[in-house]
Amino acid sequence: MINIGLLGCGRIGQVHARAISRLDNAHLIAVADAFPQAADALAAQTGAAVRSSDAIIASDDVDAVIIGTPTDTHFDLIRAAAAAGKAIFCEKPVDMSADRIRDCMKAVDDAGVAFFTAFNRRFDPNFANIQTRIAAGEIGDVEIVTILSRDPSPPPISYIESSGGIFRDMMIHDFDMARFLLQEEPVQVFAVGSALVDPAIGAAGDVDTAAVMLTTASGKICQISNSRRASYGYDQRIEVHGSKGMLRAENKLENTVEMATEAGFQRAPAMHFFLERYELAYSAEIAHFVAALEAGTAPLPGIADGLQAQLLADAASTSLETGAPVLL
Amino acid sequence: MINIGLLGCGRIGQVHARAISRLDNAHLIAVADAFPQAADALAAQTGAAVRSSDAIIASDDVDAVIIGTPTDTHFDLIRAAAAAGKAIFCEKPVDMSADRIRDCMKAVDDAGVAFFTAFNRRFDPNFANIQTRIAAGEIGDVEIVTILSRDPSPPPISYIESSGGIFRDMMIHDFDMARFLLQEEPVQVFAVGSALVDPAIGAAGDVDTAAVMLTTASGKICQISNSRRASYGYDQRIEVHGSKGMLRAENKLENTVEMATEAGFQRAPAMHFFLERYELAYSAEIAHFVAALEAGTAPLPGIADGLQAQLLADAASTSLETGAPVLL
Amino acid sequence: MINIGLLGCGRIGQVHARAISRLDNAHLIAVADAFPQAADALAAQTGAAVRSSDAIIASDDVDAVIIGTPTDTHFDLIRAAAAAGKAIFCEKPVDMSADRIRDCMKAVDDAGVAFFTAFNRRFDPNFANIQTRIAAGEIGDVEIVTILSRDPSPPPISYIESSGGIFRDMMIHDFDMARFLLQEEPVQVFAVGSALVDPAIGAAGDVDTAAVMLTTASGKICQISNSRRASYGYDQRIEVHGSKGMLRAENKLENTVEMATEAGFQRAPAMHFFLERYELAYSAEIAHFVAALEAGTAPLPGIADGLQAQLLADAASTSLETGAPVLL
Amino acid sequence: MINIGLLGCGRIGQVHARAISRLDNAHLIAVADAFPQAADALAAQTGAAVRSSDAIIASDDVDAVIIGTPTDTHFDLIRAAAAAGKAIFCEKPVDMSADRIRDCMKAVDDAGVAFFTAFNRRFDPNFANIQTRIAAGEIGDVEIVTILSRDPSPPPISYIESSGGIFRDMMIHDFDMARFLLQEEPVQVFAVGSALVDPAIGAAGDVDTAAVMLTTASGKICQISNSRRASYGYDQRIEVHGSKGMLRAENKLENTVEMATEAGFQRAPAMHFFLERYELAYSAEIAHFVAALEAGTAPLPGIADGLQAQLLADAASTSLETGAPVLL
Repeated sequence: MINIGLLGCGRIGQVHARAISRLDNAHLIAVADAFPQAADALAAQTGAAVRSSDAIIASDDVDAVIIGTPTDTHFDLIRAAAAAGKAIFCEKPVDMSADRIRDCMKAVDDAGVAFFTAFNRRFDPNFANIQTRIAAGEIGDVEIVTILSRDPSPPPISYIESSGGIFRDMMIHDFDMARFLLQEEPVQVFAVGSALVDPAIGAAGDVDTAAVMLTTASGKICQISNSRRASYGYDQRIEVHGSKGMLRAENKLENTVEMATEAGFQRAPAMHFFLERYELAYSAEIAHFVAALEAGTAPLPGIADGLQAQLLADAASTSLETGAPVLL
Repeated sequence: MINIGLLGCGRIGQVHARAISRLDNAHLIAVADAFPQAADALAAQTGAAVRSSDAIIASDDVDAVIIGTPTDTHFDLIRAAAAAGKAIFCEKPVDMSADRIRDCMKAVDDAGVAFFTAFNRRFDPNFANIQTRIAAGEIGDVEIVTILSRDPSPPPISYIESSGGIFRDMMIHDFDMARFLLQEEPVQVFAVGSALVDPAIGAAGDVDTAAVMLTTASGKICQISNSRRASYGYDQRIEVHGSKGMLRAENKLENTVEMATEAGFQRAPAMHFFLERYELAYSAEIAHFVAALEAGTAPLPGIADGLQAQLLADAASTSLETGAPVLL
Repeated sequence: MINIGLLGCGRIGQVHARAISRLDNAHLIAVADAFPQAADALAAQTGAAVRSSDAIIASDDVDAVIIGTPTDTHFDLIRAAAAAGKAIFCEKPVDMSADRIRDCMKAVDDAGVAFFTAFNRRFDPNFANIQTRIAAGEIGDVEIVTILSRDPSPPPISYIESSGGIFRDMMIHDFDMARFLLQEEPVQVFAVGSALVDPAIGAAGDVDTAAVMLTTASGKICQISNSRRASYGYDQRIEVHGSKGMLRAENKLENTVEMATEAGFQRAPAMHFFLERYELAYSAEIAHFVAALEAGTAPLPGIADGLQAQLLADAASTSLETGAPVLL
Repeated sequence: MINIGLLGCGRIGQVHARAISRLDNAHLIAVADAFPQAADALAAQTGAAVRSSDAIIASDDVDAVIIGTPTDTHFDLIRAAAAAGKAIFCEKPVDMSADRIRDCMKAVDDAGVAFFTAFNRRFDPNFANIQTRIAAGEIGDVEIVTILSRDPSPPPISYIESSGGIFRDMMIHDFDMARFLLQEEPVQVFAVGSALVDPAIGAAGDVDTAAVMLTTASGKICQISNSRRASYGYDQRIEVHGSKGMLRAENKLENTVEMATEAGFQRAPAMHFFLERYELAYSAEIAHFVAALEAGTAPLPGIADGLQAQLLADAASTSLETGAPVLL
């Protein structure tokens, strides 16, 4: 049984709390949030105690902490939790600065605690199935990875302004997915982007339509494209072309119904809301973290994976600014 | 808040208990099972009390009972619960005998209690979507309904022997679905069947491959086919042809992944296990039952729907025996 | 090289003429039609001579005749062509009367000429692929065949009145397909039907919505449904459930494009026009007929297949009239 | 009626000859080939005369020439045909050198003759449907175009050596498709590539796996990826993401059959052979060329389109060599 303290009772914290309640080998001991009402509400639902973040990190009855607080608080919480010997489950991104992630990595390594970077998409059953079958050799050597990722609609400009930019905020997931599927580190990043969805995004210094090309030392290629808007739902597709075949994951639609009329055959839109679309992934990532702690193995992706994805996002940002490919 | 007592802690009882735990407006007060360990285990998981069935029915703190016990116990439990003024959620079939269902209906009507017959498939989001769109006129008048239903593999012969036959045990779901979609009562039933999957099923007096043709007074047609075996999973499809278009629900597959090789494009099998395939339907039917009780409306399908489905199953059995269509 | 005379230069005759022009081992020698302009036009296109039907049948330079004239002329033409020793390719139905088909069969057998009944759907690449894979054992024993066949829109009432009824005019194709896929003769036919598309069809003594259930001696089942109207195109699907798996052919759509919008994912309608939908089948059936003649083997389906399909259509008509299943 | 002379009776020349035979407003007058047997064989099939290329270009009874000879002969033939006032249908690429294409363009412009560059894929009914719907505004403004193009297997090394490289030989089609769909000229090209399929291709100085990113002045993005090998057939897909929706064309499969077994649901491979895959496109491009000549309008794509695609291929080759994006 792993006893868990939850730091951050917002939308994602609530998802994790529900996922823990479905596990037989984990227990939610305590919750913390800067807004007392948020912590109180989640405590009422789950039976967990309300404590401060500091108190949770200091608690003897807590084995592991989940860090679901705003990104700019991660740095201090990670270092404190590592110093206290707690296993750490940290929402992505670990930090906006690669250097600070390196500092966290050192603290985690020095303390010898387990660290999990919550790239939840690795745990989507469809994407996980693809990775498993690649690893089993079902399509031979990976040659071209194509990732298409589109949000239903853009976030508010206030969010954009503090997001770190599309590569660090949105494509970071795709960078991790690329590494997961290529199974080899990208050595070159080339990025393009424009503000086609909303000029206000461009005015805020960001882009809303972006594409990246990654290459690895052995010549594997990955193409990623992002848009902040898709009328037809949350578009999340990956495709891997290998020497012996091809694997692809199509979108999850709202239902399996097809209607035929004069206009043709119509199926439902893609699921719109990311918490629903990735519901199974959120459950599976907590289950993996807890199982790893019980088994004494390292949960994956770890903090080094968090760093690598951030370095790719940084490189893409640089490439967009300079117009030139960036070597890693 | 609706307080619920659960009679029967087997596989389906556990599904209902989990579904209740996800509702804000229902509470599982007590559980009962002929096997004390089963009741104890579920009580431990849910925090419910363990009581006898009689005690639950007599409990003042129980608003509604879920009857998930073996079919031959339904008759007594329904009458007792009705007499005690409890709302009733009863697993299908209500009873193997139409006459005894009529007795239950009278008891329920006399007591004025709510009664829900758990034809869960009406609550599958895909099938429910089709019915909603039919009702909204999206495909005009319903003309031909086609229902294909195939189990992954046959149950043990011992189960077959006490099942009441394929029409009462398996196709009963499809009879209810036919009524749900035709929105008009069938007036004629013609059935054929054979034991093609396992001769032992034929030796037990049943068939494992069966088809039925229903017609309504206005001339609508429904074709149903069942098999006790499908190598590719739990095959559950419906299709409705109307004057303005067609609606169909395809199978739910294990994942959205497609693999392309020399042999072509391969997607995953259909989900195999009925509790997983219909997980959302089980949740939705409990939610509907509880919401109806709170609103003071009649939950649907009711006991009359349970009776009508049973009459169709009886007619199909007679048709198979006599070789002639049966008029209702 | 097989030299062919074409009797009937209407729509289907023109299709056959074009198909012959694509064959290296067949030559269209002469054409005939009751309307001289029709014959002249096709002759001009193909370089064939214009002759009378009698002259074609009597021509020494003609090896085989294609009978594409109105059904009520088939009887005389078949007997004349057989007497003249010509191989015969005859459009379906061979004749509206089973007795008269038997007379033709005797004439063909006595003359020892080859006879092909043009059930073109057997030569559709998709349906042929299914039959080939069934024959190769890919899905084990055939157990349930489901055939859904719907026309885009009903023919004129004048056509309905002389059509022989939906079973002989439209479902005749599905009866042949059922025999092709079941690979065992049906021994029982049960039919239902109603006029839901157009009351005028009912007033003309026919139905426009019909379904049939066939069973074979070993217990295999076939369900067929027909409608004279489908808003979404010419709906032609078959599905075969076997002991080891299932094979199905989906509709041919107008193109492979999918559009995604707020309303969901929309593909094109099914191809509407039967001559386009079955273009490849028309080519393949002529190629098969010619290849069989060159090889000295019997083309298939033969006249006995034409008779069997007619007997099933007659039985379905009787079943609809009497309300009872008909044994064959 | 347009009278046509065909220069080159190889595989593609034969396709064009067959397509002409299906047109009512075109006639194949004469054919030429460096191999007399090839010209004789096609003449026998079509009734055309055999002449030399020079004679065809000089023939008064020829309105238009189709140039289907090896690429290195195009330059001289185009200039001769233009000088003789013939309309010109020229296989892609017009020439391997952009400067020589410019020379041809001048000759064509000076002579005022019609010129069609045979980018057949624009005439594929699926891709054409997408372009038509983009032009009609169905998905709003085009933002991201994704083109995936994979050959079933690589050509011989001897072919690779004289091919001009993957960008000029294979991706040239995708560059034209990108222009067709973006409806705005790319201003930047970035290319990557490697020899993953066959090291011998790398040894020959070419790559077999390549990807390109194009951007336009207004910020539209196009991602293209090519592989010289796909186990599952000739993979030809395009997808266009717009401000109001998305359009995509899926592969054309060998048939519409799906088989379900324990392994899942399997459909046929993609059509393998490019002449079959694009059969309808070859017919449609000739029909367009002839219709434009009859109407006196300019056939499209013209020689300027041939030049632009070649410039993109040149830029991609340069980008691959230099590792930097190339501005146009």
